[in-house]
Amino acid sequence: MRRFRNTSAGLQSGSAPHSQLFPPAEGVMLPPESFKNRVVFITGGGTGLGRAMATVLSQLGAQCVIASRKLDVLQQTAEDICSRTGNKVHALQCDVRDPQAVSHCVDQMTSLTGLPDVIINNAAGNFICPSERLSPNAWKSITDIVLNGTAFVTLELGKRLIQDQRGASFLAITTIYAESGSGFVAPSASAKAGVEALYKSLAAEWGRYGHRFNIIQPGPIKTKGAFSRLDPTGKFEKGMIDRIPTGRLGTPAELANLAAYLSSDYASWISGAVMRFDGGEYVSMAGEFNDLRRVTPDQWKMMEAMIRSTKGS
Amino acid sequence: MRRFRNTSAGLQSGSAPHSQLFPPAEGVMLPPESFKNRVVFITGGGTGLGRAMATVLSQLGAQCVIASRKLDVLQQTAEDICSRTGNKVHALQCDVRDPQAVSHCVDQMTSLTGLPDVIINNAAGNFICPSERLSPNAWKSITDIVLNGTAFVTLELGKRLIQDQRGASFLAITTIYAESGSGFVAPSASAKAGVEALYKSLAAEWGRYGHRFNIIQPGPIKTKGAFSRLDPTGKFEKGMIDRIPTGRLGTPAELANLAAYLSSDYASWISGAVMRFDGGEYVSMAGEFNDLRRVTPDQWKMMEAMIRSTKGS
Amino acid sequence: MRRFRNTSAGLQSGSAPHSQLFPPAEGVMLPPESFKNRVVFITGGGTGLGRAMATVLSQLGAQCVIASRKLDVLQQTAEDICSRTGNKVHALQCDVRDPQAVSHCVDQMTSLTGLPDVIINNAAGNFICPSERLSPNAWKSITDIVLNGTAFVTLELGKRLIQDQRGASFLAITTIYAESGSGFVAPSASAKAGVEALYKSLAAEWGRYGHRFNIIQPGPIKTKGAFSRLDPTGKFEKGMIDRIPTGRLGTPAELANLAAYLSSDYASWISGAVMRFDGGEYVSMAGEFNDLRRVTPDQWKMMEAMIRSTKGS
Amino acid sequence: MRRFRNTSAGLQSGSAPHSQLFPPAEGVMLPPESFKNRVVFITGGGTGLGRAMATVLSQLGAQCVIASRKLDVLQQTAEDICSRTGNKVHALQCDVRDPQAVSHCVDQMTSLTGLPDVIINNAAGNFICPSERLSPNAWKSITDIVLNGTAFVTLELGKRLIQDQRGASFLAITTIYAESGSGFVAPSASAKAGVEALYKSLAAEWGRYGHRFNIIQPGPIKTKGAFSRLDPTGKFEKGMIDRIPTGRLGTPAELANLAAYLSSDYASWISGAVMRFDGGEYVSMAGEFNDLRRVTPDQWKMMEAMIRSTKGS
Ligand SMILES: NC(=O)c1ccc[n+]([C@@H]2O[C@H](COP(=O)([O-])OP(=O)(O)OC[C@H]3O[C@@H](n4cnc5c(N)ncnc54)[C@H](OP(=O)(O)O)[C@@H]3O)[C@@H](O)[C@H]2O)c1
Ligand SMILES: NC(=O)c1ccc[n+]([C@@H]2O[C@H](COP(=O)([O-])OP(=O)(O)OC[C@H]3O[C@@H](n4cnc5c(N)ncnc54)[C@H](OP(=O)(O)O)[C@@H]3O)[C@@H](O)[C@H]2O)c1
Ligand SMILES: NC(=O)c1ccc[n+]([C@@H]2O[C@H](COP(=O)([O-])OP(=O)(O)OC[C@H]3O[C@@H](n4cnc5c(N)ncnc54)[C@H](OP(=O)(O)O)[C@@H]3O)[C@@H](O)[C@H]2O)c1
Ligand SMILES: NC(=O)c1ccc[n+]([C@@H]2O[C@H](COP(=O)([O-])OP(=O)(O)OC[C@H]3O[C@@H](n4cnc5c(N)ncnc54)[C@H](OP(=O)(O)O)[C@@H]3O)[C@@H](O)[C@H]2O)c1
Repeated sequence: MRRFRNTSAGLQSGSAPHSQLFPPAEGVMLPPESFKNRVVFITGGGTGLGRAMATVLSQLGAQCVIASRKLDVLQQTAEDICSRTGNKVHALQCDVRDPQAVSHCVDQMTSLTGLPDVIINNAAGNFICPSERLSPNAWKSITDIVLNGTAFVTLELGKRLIQDQRGASFLAITTIYAESGSGFVAPSASAKAGVEALYKSLAAEWGRYGHRFNIIQPGPIKTKGAFSRLDPTGKFEKGMIDRIPTGRLGTPAELANLAAYLSSDYASWISGAVMRFDGGEYVSMAGEFNDLRRVTPDQWKMMEAMIRSTKGS
Repeated sequence: MRRFRNTSAGLQSGSAPHSQLFPPAEGVMLPPESFKNRVVFITGGGTGLGRAMATVLSQLGAQCVIASRKLDVLQQTAEDICSRTGNKVHALQCDVRDPQAVSHCVDQMTSLTGLPDVIINNAAGNFICPSERLSPNAWKSITDIVLNGTAFVTLELGKRLIQDQRGASFLAITTIYAESGSGFVAPSASAKAGVEALYKSLAAEWGRYGHRFNIIQPGPIKTKGAFSRLDPTGKFEKGMIDRIPTGRLGTPAELANLAAYLSSDYASWISGAVMRFDGGEYVSMAGEFNDLRRVTPDQWKMMEAMIRSTKGS
Repeated sequence: MRRFRNTSAGLQSGSAPHSQLFPPAEGVMLPPESFKNRVVFITGGGTGLGRAMATVLSQLGAQCVIASRKLDVLQQTAEDICSRTGNKVHALQCDVRDPQAVSHCVDQMTSLTGLPDVIINNAAGNFICPSERLSPNAWKSITDIVLNGTAFVTLELGKRLIQDQRGASFLAITTIYAESGSGFVAPSASAKAGVEALYKSLAAEWGRYGHRFNIIQPGPIKTKGAFSRLDPTGKFEKGMIDRIPTGRLGTPAELANLAAYLSSDYASWISGAVMRFDGGEYVSMAGEFNDLRRVTPDQWKMMEAMIRSTKGS
Repeated sequence: MRRFRNTSAGLQSGSAPHSQLFPPAEGVMLPPESFKNRVVFITGGGTGLGRAMATVLSQLGAQCVIASRKLDVLQQTAEDICSRTGNKVHALQCDVRDPQAVSHCVDQMTSLTGLPDVIINNAAGNFICPSERLSPNAWKSITDIVLNGTAFVTLELGKRLIQDQRGASFLAITTIYAESGSGFVAPSASAKAGVEALYKSLAAEWGRYGHRFNIIQPGPIKTKGAFSRLDPTGKFEKGMIDRIPTGRLGTPAELANLAAYLSSDYASWISGAVMRFDGGEYVSMAGEFNDLRRVTPDQWKMMEAMIRSTKGS
């Protein structure tokens, strides 16, 4: 049972008072060893949300392979996680934009761990920019990572798994604006929408090979990578929190528990699904009359009287 | 070719300057007599958008039947339209919440005009209210009209048309928040979502009987019926216009042209479709970063510099 | 690591061979006592999926209240669950179509357990029928339970929780055809779509009161209630399994784990979300070219040659 | 008034009998000169749907510029249309995958006609193929045209129009599987989903510059370009027609009327909208129980009796 307390102790800084009614549960959720003998491959696993997912899956017994461009960052993360969980974490350099690099990375993984049971397409690039300032190269700098990179990783691993007659669970991290689009991040919106369509397509097509494909659409979760390029001045955060019904940002650990669930056998009947994970931000923005939350009880009384007195159309 | 002019002459009052680049074309769009020998049935056809649709369809040669609760209002509208277009308009009293009244109304129509070729479910009720203030009766006052009313009309006419082996085009007027939901209008959101599902269901099921089912989701269009109950103080209009990309409200005549198109043979391959008609309001609200339109060019320069200087994740 | 085995031992009867790559994990997923000191209210909790959810939540420490029309069925279920889990399960008679019955039921619950922390709107009615055979009463027999029933329960509990300044998690069980609609179950499609809009509306509106609202859209899960009315002859099951990418039906225990997750603090940042839970059936049906799974490798070779030899448009 | 006739004279070959209740109206719909003094730019305008749109817009008074790779095809089309309508049609070679070619093409157009008032992104590539057979190059061969090509054209024209303070209407031709995804055409599904997100993003962002962005999602319309690569053997057409509620394929002229409407001032309040144009195919595929259309009236009687006799859940 949970009520408003008179204190905001323990609130994330900047959070709304009612966020105390939505406290994050950040411990590992799944039963221990849920991923024992499982190999997990995570792109962009060295930082931010990728790192958080690798950590939880490693805690659950998985052997993780994390891959991105910066080998030093990956290695440091691998070491940190492994020293905490006792399970091996492998760091592989891989620029997902390059199909040959992807193929080479999978070769290396194959000798290290064998093919993966769980694949998480998490690597991405993004920055805010008015669309009229985007050069063709700026456009491609995002779509090449997010859409082509995801496709190259998915097709390469898919082919090899199919050849080996092995099943796997694929997860992609997209965003709440993949469906609605959003100004000022158009390349990211397009590329993430493309990823979602790819995943839904393969969920239908590759089920017969034992593959599942699911999607998480996160709302704002504070990571250096995302916030330094999406809220460089730090001024937009308050506005986000204001419109998020749960009154706070999400945490990497919460996302990681959801990702672990969707990648686990507990979710083996979930495929082609899209899970919004955003504290309610999307529905709050999209609903035409939600700004009426600013109306006070007294104003409501007055408006109700006016509405009642309306006659006819 | 259209450019910004230095004058706002001719703008709707309250519209943004750039709305001059989106001038409404309010003349009748379809070729004359497009609805000659066609019978059109419109619920709520005495006022607002229903009246506008009846007017345009009558101008295009249709014989219209308009039905709602207030017979005097309907009769006045019928007379007005008929005197303008020279085509017959029939007024029938009908409370769509009552299946027997609906059946009786269809009986009357059958003797007056025969069964309709075009059916427009436009009648509705709505008002803004915090959901915790809704009684069960308040809930039902909306859903009974919007969802049950639409269903009773649609099932009654559908059955008779099927029995007579006659095709028809059905159109429903819902709202942009039918999919997203919206606080403060929850009964309307639910009922309109129900209408959309009904229409999509029947588009699939009753095609074999010659029936098409389509949906228009309007954004804000100034009618007395809608605005007196959704913006009683007149204070919200500015906020809506601010976030509508085309910088103005829609007009009844624009909606009527779209409705005429979807109800005409030009659209005979359109079924199960949902057409948002809102000046872009929905995508503008829903996209997470659209508030950045408030950022000035100078601020963009500064932010771009900050983003570029970010290193790593 | 999971490969095709040469045996189909352990497959659900009727399942496709590749479903062995998607084995259900049916043990309880969340940590023990995740719902300790929590009160859970489930409509339709005496049978089928409702019973499965009550069982898992009770295993996790919750005190459950299950409510529907048949008190004897509820009492038997309550006893069964309690004897298995050792936690109290209360049975309350309640026809959700009747607002007074709902209010009375909540009164009773208040004295038994206090207001709930978790509410699951699971009660429903449904049957297959060509829409032209539906009477107004048949239409209302479904929408009154599903849409009005859900609204009455939600508004009644919401108001009281708000008054007590207490947060809660709401979950609704809808269906994969709520968004797409479906012929032959139009009343259910409409009512479930209405429930989804209600939940999204309240997710946005009532976050400030500490309430979350989420939705699960199940695909086919064999329960007596659903299958006796949706597949009375048992002939459609094979067709469903054929098009479900994971090659099998879902199980009540899998759904219950998902429901427990969404109702738990692990999901406290999830609100306004819709989770499809269907083995991939929806994307498989909806994608225009998915029937090409019937094409054999040899036929592909031939078609590829034909496509390659095409010149121009 | 339209009833089933006893003859199938005039039916498209292969169409279902009830398609006579959905006859295509193929004459030009908009008032003459609706596009007088307007410049229209259409990619892929030399063939198929692009050619049909150019024809109708030219008939309505527009000066058209059509652009794609094959200059000879474009020139022949330009001549054909111009000789029919009397309005100038310009043919420009342009591979949309190449940003420099796009920029050069726009330069040429600027001297020929000035910047366009209407832009239609219609160029595309597609072919059916199991995803496990796709090489990275095959993937890129589609996404480079469809997604990057659309982006390059849109950004280039957008920038110049913004600089000139001129409004324009943008239209993209996507597909019904952009949202749902589809196996066997995954690159096309992804790229088209990306186009939709781009358009919705810009609808929100560039409204202030006088730009509208809308989308048509066609179902199957017989063009050489599409059908030779999507149904090379001609065997799938029957299956499509079977599940299309209107019982026939769409025609290029019908699509062209819709495209003209959305590009005209009659639609100046439509932006960020997605119009499905598919004879109802999408809802028919997606709805879980739509296959019950195969059940005969006698079988329904039997099933209704079985359902009625069911007791309890
Ligand atoms: N945080 C949020 O609020 C939020 C919200 C919505 C969605 N998301 C999504 O969540 C995911 C993780 O984001 P994050 O917040 O954790 O930010 P992040 O720390 O910047 O993560 C992005 C990762 O992608 C990797 N990456 C970038 N380009 C790559 C390339 N070419 N090849 C391989 N890897 C590459 C980066 O590593 P290297 O630099 O070493 O290559 C980095 O580890 C992204 O998909 C993002 O779109 C985040
Ligand atoms: N205007 C907007 O901004 C807007 C936006 C989105 C959607 N819409 C939709 O557009 C449609 C028309 O709205 P409007 O703006 O034109 O408002 P309106 O003038 O108030 O139209 C509503 C009509 O419904 C009729 N009606 C109400 N209850 C009825 C009943 N029980 N039986 C039969 N008819 C009934 C009313 O006539 P009686 O009083 O004579 O019964 C009235 O003519 C509605 O469906 C509305 O939801 C409007
Ligand atoms: N099983 C599936 O494949 C499937 C698929 C999609 C969605 N669903 C959804 O899952 C939920 C559970 O279905 P199920 O398969 O478990 O079938 P079920 O056993 O028939 O469950 C329906 C429950 O609703 C209760 N109920 C019906 N009318 C009621 C009323 N007026 N007031 C209160 N309770 C009422 C019934 O109890 P009483 O008879 O005692 O009132 C029954 O316990 C439903 O919402 C259903 O739509 C199921
Ligand atoms: N027909 C259908 O059933 C259907 C269904 C859904 C969607 N669509 C969409 O409708 C649009 C038109 O298709 P369609 O059926 O008319 O087929 P189509 O005749 O093959 O049209 C495709 C056009 O795109 C042009 N194109 C291809 N690559 C290009 C490039 N790199 N640069 C510039 N132009 C290029 C082609 O011209 P060049 O070869 O000269 O470059 C051709 O004119 C496409 O977007 C398609 O996806 C069609």
